[in-house]
Amino acid sequence: MPTIDDVARKAGVSVTTVSRILNNRGYIGNATREKVYQVMKEINYQPNELARSLFRKKSNLIGLIIPEIAHPFFSELTQYIEYYAFQNGYKLLLCNSEHDRTKEKEYIDMLKKNQVDGIIMGSMLLETDDYLQLNLPIVSFDRSIADHVPLVTSDNNNGGLLAAKILIDKGCRQLAFLYGGIKGYSGNYLNNKSMLAGLRYDGFSSECKRRNVENLNFYLEINNFANLDSIVEQIICFFQENKNVDGIFATSDVIAAYAIQACSKMDKKIPEHVKIVGYDDVILASLMAPSGITSIKQPIEEMAKQSVELIIKQINGEHVEKGYTLEVTLVERGTT
Amino acid sequence: MPTIDDVARKAGVSVTTVSRILNNRGYIGNATREKVYQVMKEINYQPNELARSLFRKKSNLIGLIIPEIAHPFFSELTQYIEYYAFQNGYKLLLCNSEHDRTKEKEYIDMLKKNQVDGIIMGSMLLETDDYLQLNLPIVSFDRSIADHVPLVTSDNNNGGLLAAKILIDKGCRQLAFLYGGIKGYSGNYLNNKSMLAGLRYDGFSSECKRRNVENLNFYLEINNFANLDSIVEQIICFFQENKNVDGIFATSDVIAAYAIQACSKMDKKIPEHVKIVGYDDVILASLMAPSGITSIKQPIEEMAKQSVELIIKQINGEHVEKGYTLEVTLVERGTT
Repeated sequence: MPTIDDVARKAGVSVTTVSRILNNRGYIGNATREKVYQVMKEINYQPNELARSLFRKKSNLIGLIIPEIAHPFFSELTQYIEYYAFQNGYKLLLCNSEHDRTKEKEYIDMLKKNQVDGIIMGSMLLETDDYLQLNLPIVSFDRSIADHVPLVTSDNNNGGLLAAKILIDKGCRQLAFLYGGIKGYSGNYLNNKSMLAGLRYDGFSSECKRRNVENLNFYLEINNFANLDSIVEQIICFFQENKNVDGIFATSDVIAAYAIQACSKMDKKIPEHVKIVGYDDVILASLMAPSGITSIKQPIEEMAKQSVELIIKQINGEHVEKGYTLEVTLVERGTT
Repeated sequence: MPTIDDVARKAGVSVTTVSRILNNRGYIGNATREKVYQVMKEINYQPNELARSLFRKKSNLIGLIIPEIAHPFFSELTQYIEYYAFQNGYKLLLCNSEHDRTKEKEYIDMLKKNQVDGIIMGSMLLETDDYLQLNLPIVSFDRSIADHVPLVTSDNNNGGLLAAKILIDKGCRQLAFLYGGIKGYSGNYLNNKSMLAGLRYDGFSSECKRRNVENLNFYLEINNFANLDSIVEQIICFFQENKNVDGIFATSDVIAAYAIQACSKMDKKIPEHVKIVGYDDVILASLMAPSGITSIKQPIEEMAKQSVELIIKQINGEHVEKGYTLEVTLVERGTT
């Protein structure tokens, strides 16, 4: 494989000159620059990106830490994050924590050693200190880490309110909030104020209170979202113990899909006997037969774009604001 | 940040000794090794992974090129690839080609410069030469590139046969194969023998022939899989022109979900009027209400595991066989 020495020799310049051209440093005349580029092309020279990274102290790598890439919300989010990162010349190191605190910690250590330029943090298992010690640009997703770490989220409180409103407007009189997570970890987040998804319940229950409609909340134990039988089973038990529930607000479209499965097994007709509102508005929501899941739409593309912009601004040493709360909207479909 | 010099000075050894320990080269006594590790811990020394990669000529990075991470098949595949790569000490650089030949080419060039140790290639837009020029370990997914490039696939021919068989056994008399792709690219793959998904149609049509059942094939233009309205519209047109079709074999569960939407809009009852078999058996297939999509299950986890093993074997200079065709199975659910 041709080296930088080969380029220098063949172009009749010094290695320092070639290196300056590669790294865009110092003054180089156009004729020299063109000559060097021509030689690189002729002998098919590939600059060693690792060596350049080391020199520039910049890897153009962004680490993306998420809990589960197979989950539709995170795969769609990742699709957009990759899109905006690529447009800005950044590559994505995919860190799938699998809801596992040890694995997330290993990834954090690894990202530090590999000197990524920044981290987009969409997982939430570790103590916030573990992230702050990194001393790297971070953007946090849906979780408040520290005052100086910018946070991208959507208006969870209003999302909950919109869900309660449509269910009550359509005639429901006994509502339930279905949410879930990993046992012992971030799962049961209603009492953890840094977990912003909890605000969905706040908005939901305050609207129920205002309209004088009873509401429950029910925590599902979810190891990973592919665990169909166990999750459907839990929802069936919930319905058996709460026979009058006629409106479900599920905190993701995936959980809404599980609730639909449970209703189907119990011969509860949707939307006649039970109405259901999901969350996220992933593609799955519109594909659910017969006519899609009514959902609170998170602006996934906007959230991804904002996250990438905030990382790059920090990498470039620009000032960034602390909080970015994007709007959510109601998308009505067949389940309400 | 502490450097390798700090470690050497504090441990009373030479920098070369520390470097040998970090890179596992040459003989080092246990006492020295332990002393150096202890110092590293004390002063919180983080070896610079970039510098080490440069030295070892190994980055422990695998490039994964896929067309669309938001598509359930690829997000589930990626979840497993990441799992097995991480277990083996490799990280994943995610390259989402977005079905775009230019972007795929840019990623290929980038991967070469970043000196990934190998590439898992699940996209198929470029000429095979573009991959072979890389001179890197490659594993190809579902596409035959060259005799010396190992290929992971599943038994597409048998998948098609199983789909035809269940539809005919359940009484269908006019079958259709629905497939799709990107205009002008790999989309219309039935005539491209290197695109192994085409074998699904071969297996399907040969079983139809053997059983004396008519069959059609219908190509859907799909820009990305989120494009609901346009795809449903195309399927409705197909049904209007082929009123007697009573059995659909869709080449992915996502296309099957679109077919269900189309049937719902046309008041065709499933499975009474039309029976549908999907492909892949992604999680979506079991979540589709009321009782899931009948599907041909690809062994996604096995395929991911096999791909990672084949890359690592090649990186380690071990011999690998050419072809790995894994078994598919029929999973019966509510659409047949």
